[in-house]
Amino acid sequence: MSFFRSRWVDAPDGVEELDPNQLAPGFRAGGAHCGLKGGGRTDVGLVVCDAEEVSSALLLTRNASAAAPIRVCRERCDAGGIRAAVVNSGNANAETGEQGFADALAMSTVAAKQLGLEQPQVAVAETGTIGVPLPVDAVLVGIAEAAKTLAPDGGSAFSDAILTTDRWPKRCTLRAGGVTLSAQAKGAGMIEPNMATMLCFVQTDAVVEDADVRLHAAVDASFNRITVDGQMSTNDTVLLQASGASGQPLPAGLLEAVLMQLAIEIVRDGEGAVRTGRIEVTEAATQAEAERVARAIANSPLVKTALFGRDPNWGRIAQAAGAALAGEDLNELGAENIDAEELGAEVEEAEIGLRLGRGEHSAHVWFSDLGYEYVKLNAEYTT
Amino acid sequence: MSFFRSRWVDAPDGVEELDPNQLAPGFRAGGAHCGLKGGGRTDVGLVVCDAEEVSSALLLTRNASAAAPIRVCRERCDAGGIRAAVVNSGNANAETGEQGFADALAMSTVAAKQLGLEQPQVAVAETGTIGVPLPVDAVLVGIAEAAKTLAPDGGSAFSDAILTTDRWPKRCTLRAGGVTLSAQAKGAGMIEPNMATMLCFVQTDAVVEDADVRLHAAVDASFNRITVDGQMSTNDTVLLQASGASGQPLPAGLLEAVLMQLAIEIVRDGEGAVRTGRIEVTEAATQAEAERVARAIANSPLVKTALFGRDPNWGRIAQAAGAALAGEDLNELGAENIDAEELGAEVEEAEIGLRLGRGEHSAHVWFSDLGYEYVKLNAEYTT
Repeated sequence: MSFFRSRWVDAPDGVEELDPNQLAPGFRAGGAHCGLKGGGRTDVGLVVCDAEEVSSALLLTRNASAAAPIRVCRERCDAGGIRAAVVNSGNANAETGEQGFADALAMSTVAAKQLGLEQPQVAVAETGTIGVPLPVDAVLVGIAEAAKTLAPDGGSAFSDAILTTDRWPKRCTLRAGGVTLSAQAKGAGMIEPNMATMLCFVQTDAVVEDADVRLHAAVDASFNRITVDGQMSTNDTVLLQASGASGQPLPAGLLEAVLMQLAIEIVRDGEGAVRTGRIEVTEAATQAEAERVARAIANSPLVKTALFGRDPNWGRIAQAAGAALAGEDLNELGAENIDAEELGAEVEEAEIGLRLGRGEHSAHVWFSDLGYEYVKLNAEYTT
Repeated sequence: MSFFRSRWVDAPDGVEELDPNQLAPGFRAGGAHCGLKGGGRTDVGLVVCDAEEVSSALLLTRNASAAAPIRVCRERCDAGGIRAAVVNSGNANAETGEQGFADALAMSTVAAKQLGLEQPQVAVAETGTIGVPLPVDAVLVGIAEAAKTLAPDGGSAFSDAILTTDRWPKRCTLRAGGVTLSAQAKGAGMIEPNMATMLCFVQTDAVVEDADVRLHAAVDASFNRITVDGQMSTNDTVLLQASGASGQPLPAGLLEAVLMQLAIEIVRDGEGAVRTGRIEVTEAATQAEAERVARAIANSPLVKTALFGRDPNWGRIAQAAGAALAGEDLNELGAENIDAEELGAEVEEAEIGLRLGRGEHSAHVWFSDLGYEYVKLNAEYTT
């Protein structure tokens, strides 16, 4: 099994891995180059469900400086029935004013026309540089070109078209329990977008009646538990589409495992990242406290540099936890309550534990390290 | 004027700069080497007010993983009348259990005995490595040695004894309005303490009746408005002692200007820091919102690397602000509401502005950049 390669993800029983070119039955995808990215790389992607009765769910960033495509999509989050998505990479269309909003709207209108759909049936996602006007004419031509490439084996083409500075594509096609699920994600390459924009598209022929509930739960356990640098993107988008064509329900744990593996891939591919950590905080007084402490540790630059430098420095864990609990009563943690050995171990995925001794709640977060490449990528982007 | 060198600090009218060796009249200080730091550097310091009726105020970190000296001092925060402080550098005495607490208590007891004071009249402060037992016998010998060096011109000796990885000392002796004020601080060198521990001691012969109120207000406007890496130390301590011997009140703005300059020095001397930024957020809906947004920007690694790389990247400001306001209604900020030019300018102190367009509240925070040296210092400490 090459897709489920993280120690933290359990592949569901009997899951079979297919060629990621091959989408779930009933879906087609494709990609084209319109000039947003250099080197002739594809930068416009389309994915469409041919079944008319698609069950869908769409999750968007809560960043108050949300990009134009997010604002276009917000009104259709609760509508369901999203048949297609149009995506560009290389330009985030964020902080681009009314024109940017009109451009994002035009993208979905043109994509809908190409696909014979209504405009509200098409989601728009964009990722790339912020504050740069979208060369919308080129993008609209690109959409028409991408429509010509639509094919059941267009998974990799679509996946390539949504990447920015990812060092490797994140995609899979899996079969289990009589259903097929394909997914494509792009991650936290921070150079070009200057943001950890995360996009993820999931297609399945399973019957998913409560798509919204299922997707929320799976995202809460995966993309909402990762941090590269504590920064929330202006463009994050996750779309789940289920055609129901197989007549079978989603096997338990399949969606969750896929999103978790993709989330960890995104952390692993964090800008300049070398190692991935997972902090598990237990014995917290409340759930909110467990979350707060775990995130404080995962976002602490001292902990992240320790992960990079293989420094099993438990004092930094204690300090970050204490800061997150400022003003509260906390027994001295000491080395005996902090499992930080793997910070210093020769493992790519380091598991770190902290017992607070205050109650019975727990939370965990995955995070990337902080090394020279992060500084290089983010400081030297425009120079 | 060489002390007040930040563009952001206004030196009070008529202030005169004296030799920083020279403490405010009625104070003596000194330092000795006990072996906590290498190279024979002094690592135990004492400062004492000879006047019996000292007015004092003591502010301590709120970190819930507070070090032993903080826990020893907490109970005397409200007592006032702190005649002396004993400090060591090179060992934070944090996460050191009951023994650490006993050691910190012993330090104040021995210092009190040396100075002919009661133990509760002596504050204890420590800074350095976390989780390492304090070699208390050596420290107690060091305290006796330091007591022998006490002198009215011991300001620099005391200042040197509290430094850890600071690249330069932070100290001054000033005269204005008939009073003298001397101050010594140590900053956010992160290597040895693995923490941005900040210590600051201020002595004056002014009459300060509301020392606690005055110190709180001055710290709120200075040390509480700086961030190197968003990390709250286990050991932060600020002590103000006023003998009243001059019979004159503190001139308006003097204490505030001194603490602000010292705070900015600490940012400037942040681990590996090259440039200092000040973000001013205006037009926020509430004061809390202004603070939250300013701190989110100041702690954003994307903004900090932009400051390091001289990248006038206003999109990162918009993104950080939007993340801090997640889920709220925010008009698109755009370049016209963000003054980010100085991120890219040839100035050591960069002023950045953000207008939120939501109300009338404002807040500002000073912060350091994030460059290669930060990673080097923090990743390679133990390797």
